[in-house]
This record gives sequence, structure tokens and C-alpha cells, in this order.
Amino acid sequence: MLMKHLKLPIIIVNYKTYSEATGKKAVKLSKIAEEVSMETGVNVGVAPQFADIAAIADTVSIPVFSQHIDPISPGSFTGHILLESVKEAGAVGTLINHSERRLKLCAIEAIVARIRESGIVSVVCTNNAAVSAAVAALKPDIISLEPPELIGTGIPVSKAQPEVVTETVERVKRINPDAVLLCGAGITEGEDVTAALKLGTMGVLVASGIVKAKDPRKVLMEFSEAITETT
Amino acid sequence: MLMKHLKLPIIIVNYKTYSEATGKKAVKLSKIAEEVSMETGVNVGVAPQFADIAAIADTVSIPVFSQHIDPISPGSFTGHILLESVKEAGAVGTLINHSERRLKLCAIEAIVARIRESGIVSVVCTNNAAVSAAVAALKPDIISLEPPELIGTGIPVSKAQPEVVTETVERVKRINPDAVLLCGAGITEGEDVTAALKLGTMGVLVASGIVKAKDPRKVLMEFSEAITETT
Amino acid sequence: MLMKHLKLPIIIVNYKTYSEATGKKAVKLSKIAEEVSMETGVNVGVAPQFADIAAIADTVSIPVFSQHIDPISPGSFTGHILLESVKEAGAVGTLINHSERRLKLCAIEAIVARIRESGIVSVVCTNNAAVSAAVAALKPDIISLEPPELIGTGIPVSKAQPEVVTETVERVKRINPDAVLLCGAGITEGEDVTAALKLGTMGVLVASGIVKAKDPRKVLMEFSEAITETT
Amino acid sequence: MLMKHLKLPIIIVNYKTYSEATGKKAVKLSKIAEEVSMETGVNVGVAPQFADIAAIADTVSIPVFSQHIDPISPGSFTGHILLESVKEAGAVGTLINHSERRLKLCAIEAIVARIRESGIVSVVCTNNAAVSAAVAALKPDIISLEPPELIGTGIPVSKAQPEVVTETVERVKRINPDAVLLCGAGITEGEDVTAALKLGTMGVLVASGIVKAKDPRKVLMEFSEAITETT
Repeated sequence: MLMKHLKLPIIIVNYKTYSEATGKKAVKLSKIAEEVSMETGVNVGVAPQFADIAAIADTVSIPVFSQHIDPISPGSFTGHILLESVKEAGAVGTLINHSERRLKLCAIEAIVARIRESGIVSVVCTNNAAVSAAVAALKPDIISLEPPELIGTGIPVSKAQPEVVTETVERVKRINPDAVLLCGAGITEGEDVTAALKLGTMGVLVASGIVKAKDPRKVLMEFSEAITETT
Repeated sequence: MLMKHLKLPIIIVNYKTYSEATGKKAVKLSKIAEEVSMETGVNVGVAPQFADIAAIADTVSIPVFSQHIDPISPGSFTGHILLESVKEAGAVGTLINHSERRLKLCAIEAIVARIRESGIVSVVCTNNAAVSAAVAALKPDIISLEPPELIGTGIPVSKAQPEVVTETVERVKRINPDAVLLCGAGITEGEDVTAALKLGTMGVLVASGIVKAKDPRKVLMEFSEAITETT
Repeated sequence: MLMKHLKLPIIIVNYKTYSEATGKKAVKLSKIAEEVSMETGVNVGVAPQFADIAAIADTVSIPVFSQHIDPISPGSFTGHILLESVKEAGAVGTLINHSERRLKLCAIEAIVARIRESGIVSVVCTNNAAVSAAVAALKPDIISLEPPELIGTGIPVSKAQPEVVTETVERVKRINPDAVLLCGAGITEGEDVTAALKLGTMGVLVASGIVKAKDPRKVLMEFSEAITETT
Repeated sequence: MLMKHLKLPIIIVNYKTYSEATGKKAVKLSKIAEEVSMETGVNVGVAPQFADIAAIADTVSIPVFSQHIDPISPGSFTGHILLESVKEAGAVGTLINHSERRLKLCAIEAIVARIRESGIVSVVCTNNAAVSAAVAALKPDIISLEPPELIGTGIPVSKAQPEVVTETVERVKRINPDAVLLCGAGITEGEDVTAALKLGTMGVLVASGIVKAKDPRKVLMEFSEAITETT
């Protein structure tokens, strides 16, 4: 799947290594995401653990993302994550440089270049406007701003630091006008999603807000409706 | 599967991130490994990439190992390898500290302790006798000696440095008499396997010797027969 | 200075990257440490930042330790810490594997082996009894137990977790009867030092307890007197 | 020293952890660099190991650079490199992200921001045009391009890959017109320096070409004269 086929706006649900989103539970949550996506027409992607990619990609038709890949080609890299491996398992894109798995700059550049030739989608996570601008120079498909101090807090970046999102959009667009931005961290309600879109992003990257919710379907439905109402 | 159910000696085939052992090819190679194991009665395990564990464990009944796990519990660890995830996918054990994925000492200790409670098998890779002795103090299920300078060379440790294997067995047993040792690096012929067993190991960890062989089945058969003839 | 010339028990003060112990302030604190050592006859060592080693070693005659070294020989390692460099600057020993600078197991082994040939003293930090036992197999000169959860808390390991210290001494001595143990974390009073010695250690590794004290001389004097009274 | 006081073009000599440039030998080499600088009027800086910064800065008046700093503030960071520490020792700038000490993107951003407020000069090393463009978005004082495959080969980037230097200058200037570029790797002769300047850089970062030369003074003189002739 090329980026041009990835419908925007998008909600990407990062399963992290939560027990609520491991193994069979990951497949079940992905079915819920698919149902919400079909009902609302909003694109919902999921980013499960590596060992769950194949089972989820075999079960649902929504986009499945890897949580990370390493800057390697096929070869002698025991214990590393190979682009070709997650792609064959069914991933249509991958997160990289998440705040819990930061990468060296030269690795980000090498990975984004590899992804560009591979026909999958790159989503590079960033922590502030300056880092986002640096990443924009590498021309990944998507940049996802997540101030790490807000992750898991329930305080949404789109409300707590709207100026950071605005500055990020501005600095990124100056370097790469085609850049697509998401934002994340602290997103728990529909209005956080609305705020994110109004600030110039094309969606959200969310984790505990969905995975740890009492009723993930309900929250995901609220997020999706916020998108259909805004766009 | 507990260690007591893991039949020894064992041949573990590390698939690394070789393209010859990724995705469908990984499943196919695992079927060959299973056939050889059934024909010869020798235990053959495979260590595929994370994204391939589930498909392989669903297809074959030989032991499947993860190539690595991280020192984490379920939670916020995007892009990391959770024991529970690879176990649910079907892994009955895991390599850790491979020369291509070395770990901090405190991580090795934490992972071995977690594995001990989980009912899967720990295989800790080491590079010399002193490091093997240190690992022995942590009481993993298996220690696998692989001098990194010999990996992928075709020069087997069991022939090139038999005294390193002997010294390793000796120093390890002094600290943990129950320790099980494998050795690896440069193993390409049956006689390398025979030599490894005679030096006091309970099998071999092999990668390119099988995966990159023109006829993996033939080489694996030769290795397995070397074991049946020696034991 | 060889280990045989390092008088025990010893108090080692880790300056970390505290501003109270950087540059001229580091030299001044080292003079205080030297005065206390001369007055009480107790051996007091200091572990300043790399850039301060030379000035301190030129000024005082107490043992100066590096805070870390890398597993490298002279060569192309920009930005790394070379044993020969800190030794020529005046370090007579080095900490390694501090909780704030953990190392890979194979690096610890390589560094301890290099140090053994260099005529300086190795002090390997550890976080629990199992890791200490693993390190004991590598035969460094000194092992310093510091449960990271107690560092900087003011809750001394010698009081809060005496059984951890005892178990560590026991497991370490079983593997290397000649091992010298220190303990650290939360040490702020003379009685913490007394407790540490009574549990079988040969001194303490302390940081904020001295560096952040209102009157470092007074606390260091209290620690030293606790040692003279106990031994 | 602020960037505005750093005279350009500049030759920066990276001492790495070469034994020829450790301790007293580092001071001696720095005196040679100072002499050449005074004779030719060309600015020559040196980047010694951390433990040698103070002795060199006390002895010579040419700019002394640190080889690396960590993304930290004063505090509990045993074994790390604090900006304040190398600055007090006499460093007027620092290399970061050298190919032998690559950093995470978010660390580069944090360090450059800290340096900006500190009044010292930041020199960020890069490996290609895309990475240089990304770094340009962070607005460091100097960007130094060094294709790692050429380091230590004697094949100068300015001759072997002039198009890479040209592309780098172009992409960097588009993002930050004020950017100052150096290039390095394989520089061994005066004409390599001339070529570097003609391609749009403001000098060179050199290591073995000087440090490992039979007659460092002669080579440094040749480099400096190449600069006076070109500018």
C-alpha cells in the first residue's frame, strides 16, 4: 500500500506492549477497530506487537503498522526488526522513533530511505517542533508529534500545548509542504481529536486512551465521529 | 514447556534476519527441520524473526525460540519484545544476548529471572569462558558459547578453539554444575557437531551453516546423524 | 597503584555530574576529602568527572577514580573514555557499570580484563546479589552493591535491605573468596557506614550524602570515624 | 567564546583516542597546532579527550573542542559528559554526533539547544546530505559532513564524492542560509583542503591525517597554506 492509498485523516492505535492488546486480545481489539472504521468511514489503523502483526493482518482489512523497524537489510542481525519481515507479515507501514524507542538520527534517515523504496508508509514520531522540522527534511510520509511529558497523562497535547502543535505544523510545512502531521499524547476524548484536526494535523496517534479504556469501542467511535464532524 | 521437557542434545537453528528464512521461507525451512527431527529422533529447534513465530509454531511441533526479549513487563514499551507476546505466539524459549544483540548485564539478570517464572527456556549467548562463567551465576537454562570472531566464517569453534570450549565447560560447571552448554559459530559439517559434543556441550546453535546451505535438509541431516552417532 | 596498595576500608565519593562537584568546586571538595583522610587515617577516594581528574590528581594525594571507562584500546573512538587517558591524568582506579551508566556484560568483562593488566583498580557497581555473583566470576578488584531504588533517597541499603547485603557477600564469596565488597545508596549517617561494615563490606560508595551535604567535611568526618570505631 | 568570535575558515583536529594524542603527547601536538596557526594566521582548533582538555586549554590559546557532550543538566549522571564541566575545563565548543559516537535525534536537538544558551560552539557531525539537512533545521553553529565509509582511508570526500559535498551545501543552505559547513574524512593533503573550500565549506575536520602523520607540523602547515591560498 502506498501512501497515496492511505486515506486521511487517520486514527492510529498504538498497542505498545499492553497486556490488554497482546495476542488474542490484540486480534479482538483490531476487529473492534475495523468495525468502527467501517461504520464511520474513518480510517483506523493499528500498531500491534511484532508477533501479532500476521494474525491481525490476516483477520482485518484496516491498515496494520509495525511499532518499529531497525536500520538493517536482510542479513546477520539476530533479534532485530527487518522491514521485509513485518511487510510480509502484513504491515502496510511502521512507526519509528517513538518516545519509548528513540533512534539515532542516522538510523532514522536510513530507515526512512529504505521505507521509501519499499512501498510501505513511514510514521516518524517526534517530541517537539524543532525535532519535527529536522525530521521533515528527511521527507517521511507522516510525522507524529507526541510531547513525551504528556503521554499517558490524559492531558491532550491539542489542548495543553496548542501552540506547540501550531508551531510544529508551521516549521514542518516550511521545510516540506507535503508533510502530513498527526499528534498524540493524552488524547482521551472526541474533542481532543477535533482540536488536533483544527490545529492542522491529519489525525491522532493514540495508545492508552483506547487500549486501556473501559469500552474501547465507545471511545474509538467518539474519536471517529469527531473526525467526521470536523472534516 | 519447561526445561525438563526439552530433549537434549539439541540443534537450534537461528534464522537471524536472513531473507532465506523470512516469512513463507521461514515456515518452509521449519518444516524441513521438523522432518529431520522426526526422522532422526534428534531435537531440532528454530529461532525465527518475531513476526514469523506464530505461523511457524502453528505449523510445526518442534520447539520455536524467540531471538531476543527485552527486560520489560507488560506496559508502555513501544517497539520492544515482551516475553508474554512471543510466548502466546508459540515460542517455548528465547535466545538472549546474541553477539548481534548484546545486553547490559542487569538486563540479562532481569530477563533470566522473568523467564524462570514464565515456564519458557532461556538460552543466553556468550563470547568467551569468563562471560560464560558470569552468566552461569545467573542460572539460565542454557548457555551458548559463540566466539564472535568465528561467526559466519565456516571455521568451527569446536575445532579452531577446542580449549575455549573446554575451559568454558569447566568454569561454568564450577559455578553451576547443572548448566547445559551449547556452542556455535562456524559449524558447517557433521564432524563439527561431533567435536562440540565430545568437548562437553549438549548441542549446537547454528545459523548460516543451515540457512545459507544449498541444501539445508542435507546439512541438518548430517548434523543430526552426528548427534545420534555420538550419543 | 595496584590493589594491594589500596588501603581498606575505603570511602569512595562519587561526584556524578553535580554542579557542587564540578571544576574548581571539585578540587575544593577533594582537598576536604584529603584532610579528613589525613586526620582520621581512613582511606577516602574521589570519583570526579573526566575533565577534572588531572587537576584533582595534581592537587591531592588521595586516590582518584574515573567514573567510567569504555571497552576500547587506543584508536578511532571519538567521544569515548580510554583507560590510558584517565590513567595518565592521574586516576588510580575506575568505577564501571554504575546504575547511571550500565554496561553490556561483554563490555564489563573486556574492561575488567584490560584493567587487570593496567595496574589500576576496578570497581564494578551492581544492583543485586545475582548480578554481584555474576560480576564476581569476572574477578574485578572491588564490587560495589547499590540497589538503584535506594540511590539518593537517604534510606541506606545497610539498614533497609541488610539481607540483600548479606546475601550478596555470601554469593560473591562463594565464587571469589578474595572479593572486596562495598555498598552504597542512601548512605547519609555514620551509623549507615557502621552497619555496612558489620554486614561484611569493606566500605561505602557515596554521592549525594557527601556532595549535597550542607557541611561535606562534617559528614565525611562522621563516616570516617564510624570506620575507625568499627575496625 | 561565541560563534561570532570563531574565525573562519577553520581546521579542527580530532584527537580521537589515539595514543599519539593522549596526555602529554596531546599537549605537545596542541602546541604545534598553535604554532602553525600563529605562523599562517589560519584558525586551527583541537578536539582532545576529556581528561586532556584542561591541560591543553591552560597551555595554548587556540580553540579547544570537546569530542562529545551528553544531553544532560547538572545532576545524577555518573560517567556522562556535562557541558558545564568541559566548558569550565576550557572547551570553547564541542563536536557531537561523530560517526564513532552517534546520538539519538532528540539528544542532538536537546544538546544543540543547551549549547546555544551556553556561549560555546556546536559542531554537529553528519554522514550525508539528508542527515545534514535534518541537522540544519536544528540550527547548530557548524555542520561537519563526514561520509563514514571514507574516514581513515586517505580518500578525501572532497575529491571522491564532490557531488555529496555540493548537494549537502545546497540542501543545508536551503533550510538554514547562515549554516557553516566543514567536511572531513580522508583529508591528507593540502589539495584536499583546497577542494573542500571550493565546494563551499569553511574548513575541514581532520584526525588521522594529522595525528598519525609522520610530521604533523608539516601536514598542518600544508593544510593551512592551502587555506590562505584559497581564501
